[in-house]
Amino acid sequence: MSGGTKDAVAVIGAGLIGWAWAICFARAGHAVKLYDVSQPALEAALGLIETALHDLRDNGLLDDPAAAQARISTAATLEEALAGVAYVQENVRETVEAKQEIFAALDRIADPAAILASSSSNIRASLFTETLPGRARCLVAHPANPPHLVPIVELSPAPWTDPAVVDRARALHDAAGMSAILVRREVPGFILNRLQGALLAEAFKLVADGYASAEDVDKTIKDGLGLRWAFMGPFETIDLNAPGGIADYIDRYAPMYWDMQEMQATPRRWDEPLRDALESERRDALPADRLGDRQAWRDRRLMALLAHKRAAAKEIGE
Amino acid sequence: MSGGTKDAVAVIGAGLIGWAWAICFARAGHAVKLYDVSQPALEAALGLIETALHDLRDNGLLDDPAAAQARISTAATLEEALAGVAYVQENVRETVEAKQEIFAALDRIADPAAILASSSSNIRASLFTETLPGRARCLVAHPANPPHLVPIVELSPAPWTDPAVVDRARALHDAAGMSAILVRREVPGFILNRLQGALLAEAFKLVADGYASAEDVDKTIKDGLGLRWAFMGPFETIDLNAPGGIADYIDRYAPMYWDMQEMQATPRRWDEPLRDALESERRDALPADRLGDRQAWRDRRLMALLAHKRAAAKEIGE
Repeated sequence: MSGGTKDAVAVIGAGLIGWAWAICFARAGHAVKLYDVSQPALEAALGLIETALHDLRDNGLLDDPAAAQARISTAATLEEALAGVAYVQENVRETVEAKQEIFAALDRIADPAAILASSSSNIRASLFTETLPGRARCLVAHPANPPHLVPIVELSPAPWTDPAVVDRARALHDAAGMSAILVRREVPGFILNRLQGALLAEAFKLVADGYASAEDVDKTIKDGLGLRWAFMGPFETIDLNAPGGIADYIDRYAPMYWDMQEMQATPRRWDEPLRDALESERRDALPADRLGDRQAWRDRRLMALLAHKRAAAKEIGE
Repeated sequence: MSGGTKDAVAVIGAGLIGWAWAICFARAGHAVKLYDVSQPALEAALGLIETALHDLRDNGLLDDPAAAQARISTAATLEEALAGVAYVQENVRETVEAKQEIFAALDRIADPAAILASSSSNIRASLFTETLPGRARCLVAHPANPPHLVPIVELSPAPWTDPAVVDRARALHDAAGMSAILVRREVPGFILNRLQGALLAEAFKLVADGYASAEDVDKTIKDGLGLRWAFMGPFETIDLNAPGGIADYIDRYAPMYWDMQEMQATPRRWDEPLRDALESERRDALPADRLGDRQAWRDRRLMALLAHKRAAAKEIGE
């Protein structure tokens, strides 16, 4: 499909999440208007986008970086950014006040039919849209980091969000190659961070109580659970791990997991000594001055993994 | 290293875990003696091993399936299986009584220097080795399913296991291309199932409380968290998700996760209605008569992922 037939999109806030969103929409054929209150941030974003688009091409994830780049333009004002767009992805500071302020402006300026979505990771839409005239068109669309390399996007509507708006947002993201899920009722942390938090809580306890090193916990995931979870979720994984499927799995293993749940129930603070022990173990493995290199390594590994998953889905099946 | 220079290994019990263990050791150059009380099971295992070795070759994970197969021989008796081996991997029924019985026999018959390891997933070594004369050479070496496609192995010694035995077991597994981790103190579920259990407990709650469908929880992992976890663990993931590393991440996000932990704390039974709802959603996605096909698909995807990880580690770095 050519870019011209797709709705224009505005990306508000050109930090790490913002410029990566611009890539997601532009590579899918949307014209993207990128805006930031900081002109230097906006200019820096264009350079970062160019590099990332070429990285995607080099990893077989994008055919034409120049065409994608050409779809992205910067806007000098919020009004200019919002003119004629059907979807807005907001990425400003993560405070309730900042979200309230920008959403009031977005709702005032944007075309009444435009969808207004926030990248917020921990502030629910009901906390910053309740009093807006256009609150029915507002929702959260929370990506992972970075969105152009991790396809998940969590759509979390407020109680007053129009279901048709959610459907349109889901269709737009799915058509753009993202993987949209629906958070049916608002919940702190949405789905992704609640799942991550549950696993982290246990991982922290295992290290704090001396059962395993952080390195061995990491191995247990990357050489164990994470392999299946990279292409199946936890439910499909257990569905295939008992001869009769998930009900059979539950019948067999619910008692074992119940005993664990009882032991795991007590919340535990991530206190100073544990924080310092983890920092110390990680800095032994990776000195602080190499964090940036390792993040670049992570992104290259993510791109290679995405290219692999695309090929495997085609050859072996999704 | 040629096969002849490596210690011989006995695999006791030739069910799914047993025959897959035979592959792990044989492809690494060990002579493997495979034993099962059931002669038909033993013969079936040889056929399954042959198929699996060729699958590994077809996926670029093994050069010479015939050479690996030639290192595996079956034994007609436990005595014959244990003669001359330096390491024993036990895979009999998962009950305390069955483990006590087989370990008493293993300790009586095997060479006194041989290591005796159990594949037990939920029975700690102290529950079936305490009274044995050779209890210092006994431990659990718990694999994932199937061990020839998922490299993790959890070494969980009893309080009386000789640390040198743990070191030798770890060296043997790592040299065989497995990824061995140490469970420093016995704990129900070891590390892997405790981490899986913590994530599953939250996943079950999210579905039970109507926040998300099982399908969307699965997407959140396979298109989100599971991508990073396929090549980094949860600690490295958060170490790279804040500018200043893991301590910075904890400083930023511990309050958010603490709020979640408090909400997540109450253990919840996986009761009949939830079990039935999950079974119903999964059977809509995958009819029961296709479970076997899908398990074969999973194994092909795992092999392709392992081949990808091997190539990516070489090209991009581990």
